[in-house]
Amino acid sequence: MSLINMLFGKKPKSAQVARDRLQIIIAQQRSDRSSENTTPDYLPTLQKELLEVLSKYVEIKLEDINISHEKQDGVDMLALNITLPENKKTEKTENPA
Amino acid sequence: MSLINMLFGKKPKSAQVARDRLQIIIAQQRSDRSSENTTPDYLPTLQKELLEVLSKYVEIKLEDINISHEKQDGVDMLALNITLPENKKTEKTENPA
Repeated sequence: MSLINMLFGKKPKSAQVARDRLQIIIAQQRSDRSSENTTPDYLPTLQKELLEVLSKYVEIKLEDINISHEKQDGVDMLALNITLPENKKTEKTENPA
Repeated sequence: MSLINMLFGKKPKSAQVARDRLQIIIAQQRSDRSSENTTPDYLPTLQKELLEVLSKYVEIKLEDINISHEKQDGVDMLALNITLPENKKTEKTENPA
C-alpha cells in the first residue's frame, strides 16, 4: 500500500464528504535513540509556524484542526488533519464526485 | 499498518544509518474532482516557505532534500524527505516570529 493511499484512510462521515481536507505530517526519525531526550523537541513550535504559513493559502479554523502526536520506534510523528471550509472553493457545484 | 510505520519505510542504506531524517508530507484531498483545475495549486509555493521555516530549526542542505509530488484519486501529495546533517543546530536560535 502506498503512502498516498494511506492518507485520509478513514472514510469521511457523510457530513464531511463535501469538504476538502488537508493533512500535514511531520515526522522525525532519530538514528540514535539515546538522543531522543537530548535533542530539543521543536516539532510543536514548528507546527505553529507551519499553520501560520498555511493560513496564508487556505482559510483554517482552529476547531477544524485535529492534531495527533505519536512516538514509536524512534520516530516522532506530528499529524495535522484539517478540514477546509467550503467557502474557499469556487461556486461551481457541478457533479460532485 | 499504521501511518507511522509507513513513514521512512525504505530501509536506509548503511551510509545513512547514522543520520537523522525528517519527513514532511502535505496532502490535500479535494472533495470535488472538478475543482482540481480551478483551485490554485499552492503546494509548490508552500513547499518553499516550509523549507524556510524548517531551516530555522534544522540545518538543511539542498542536496539532502528529496521532494516528490504525486496526484492520485483526488489527493495531491507533496512529500519532502530530508536527511539531517549530524551537526544539528541545537543552539536555540529562536528568531522572534
